Amino acid sequence: MKVLLVFAHPEPRSLNGALRDVAIHELEAQGHEVRVSDLYAEGWKSEVDRADFPSQPPDERLIAVAASKAAFDTGTLTEDVRAEIEKLLWADVLILQFPLWWFGMPAILKGWVDRVFAYGFAYGVGEHSDRRWGDRYGEGTLAGKRAMLIVTAGGWEEHYAARGVNGPIDDLLFPINHGILYYPGYEVLPPFVAYRVDRLAEAGFEAVAERLRERMRTLATTPPIPYRRQNGGDYLIPSMQLRPGLGDPGTSGFGLHADEVATGI
Amino acid sequence: MKVLLVFAHPEPRSLNGALRDVAIHELEAQGHEVRVSDLYAEGWKSEVDRADFPSQPPDERLIAVAASKAAFDTGTLTEDVRAEIEKLLWADVLILQFPLWWFGMPAILKGWVDRVFAYGFAYGVGEHSDRRWGDRYGEGTLAGKRAMLIVTAGGWEEHYAARGVNGPIDDLLFPINHGILYYPGYEVLPPFVAYRVDRLAEAGFEAVAERLRERMRTLATTPPIPYRRQNGGDYLIPSMQLRPGLGDPGTSGFGLHADEVATGI
Repeated sequence: MKVLLVFAHPEPRSLNGALRDVAIHELEAQGHEVRVSDLYAEGWKSEVDRADFPSQPPDERLIAVAASKAAFDTGTLTEDVRAEIEKLLWADVLILQFPLWWFGMPAILKGWVDRVFAYGFAYGVGEHSDRRWGDRYGEGTLAGKRAMLIVTAGGWEEHYAARGVNGPIDDLLFPINHGILYYPGYEVLPPFVAYRVDRLAEAGFEAVAERLRERMRTLATTPPIPYRRQNGGDYLIPSMQLRPGLGDPGTSGFGLHADEVATGI
Repeated sequence: MKVLLVFAHPEPRSLNGALRDVAIHELEAQGHEVRVSDLYAEGWKSEVDRADFPSQPPDERLIAVAASKAAFDTGTLTEDVRAEIEKLLWADVLILQFPLWWFGMPAILKGWVDRVFAYGFAYGVGEHSDRRWGDRYGEGTLAGKRAMLIVTAGGWEEHYAARGVNGPIDDLLFPINHGILYYPGYEVLPPFVAYRVDRLAEAGFEAVAERLRERMRTLATTPPIPYRRQNGGDYLIPSMQLRPGLGDPGTSGFGLHADEVATGI
């Protein structure tokens, strides 16, 4: 398979840098072809602004959604963004690797999403009717491809557990896994998360690395998170509410949007 | 009161720009003192990188947490970051205003958090013992102050409801409200959210503006989200799990960390 790894850490000599090399090495050993977008090394621009839309008249009010649509339609997105879109279309698998900073992605990676996920490419795709609300959440430009996160966290795993004070890690990552990756069509694999990384000694590293290698070996076979397809019948249109009766009564919040029962997970 | 509004939109002539002016005008009419950090206008740097720690030797491995601690302790954070910290200490109320992009903050605002919320200032504060796990989640440098979000979203309110396909808005904002604002001590007010903003006509604007004015008038009196204090007895230490028996059995995920019953909300 073809794998794109988007890497968002400022220090190559970091744990993240070491884990990236472990992942790439294992992927290549399995015969996969790997490309890397190293956002810090490439000096990625994080901010959506007027410079992203060079064909827009300089004194015209900037409406980001409309400008994104116009630039995508006319092929006038900036070269750095077009190069990333080309890589996303090339790859069978997208991996986003980052340290969890303030319970989310570092700004540079959020800026990669904000700028690369253009209107007409990652959103604003498909027809709206009484049977479908665009191609999103399981459908879209990137359908048929897989995606997963590689995340490092300074905190303890217990603090990210179902009743841990930080909130469950799967819920903290839901805006990324469901909102950013599942939205344009990716099948999203469970994330790889390493905890307490500030205290990880040499001895601890090898166990984490081996766990990551195993995930790289099973990239094609790991069952994705069973998010519900928007247009598969589970949601009312146009209110996009989960139909009454669906979802475990003991579940609330984000958990409703994965159909754990159907898949036996 | 003293209010700091951090504004993260690239276009002054936007709905966000108009709502910002509405908020400022109403706050000043109420006798509050307002300062604004306009991140785009000020050319805010989004990325945490080596340039943030000028006193670190250039060939030394960058460990962001350690570098942040050292720079805060020695007063060698960069001037832009120190200016924002000074404003945060000055303000009684912090307002973060932004368009919801991909279910989170624009990169430039995430970069404001990543860079300004330094170790020793916003995290890494307080003692760890068998009775407390640092000063965080309701305690910390910014305790006694209030914070709230002003958010615009393109999508429909129904899609962000309890069973809506995007996930509940309160859960989508939990990593910000609880993870970024409550963490260093703020009391966090319920967010102000405007939906379907891409279709908001002139007539619709005034209703949204009036709703925002009302929130600005009640900034001092609106009850905060009743998040549970980490060191208040609800969590086991050091696992930081919510004690057995606490939390509505019909609630899971983020909802467990607000004590709605106790406050009658």
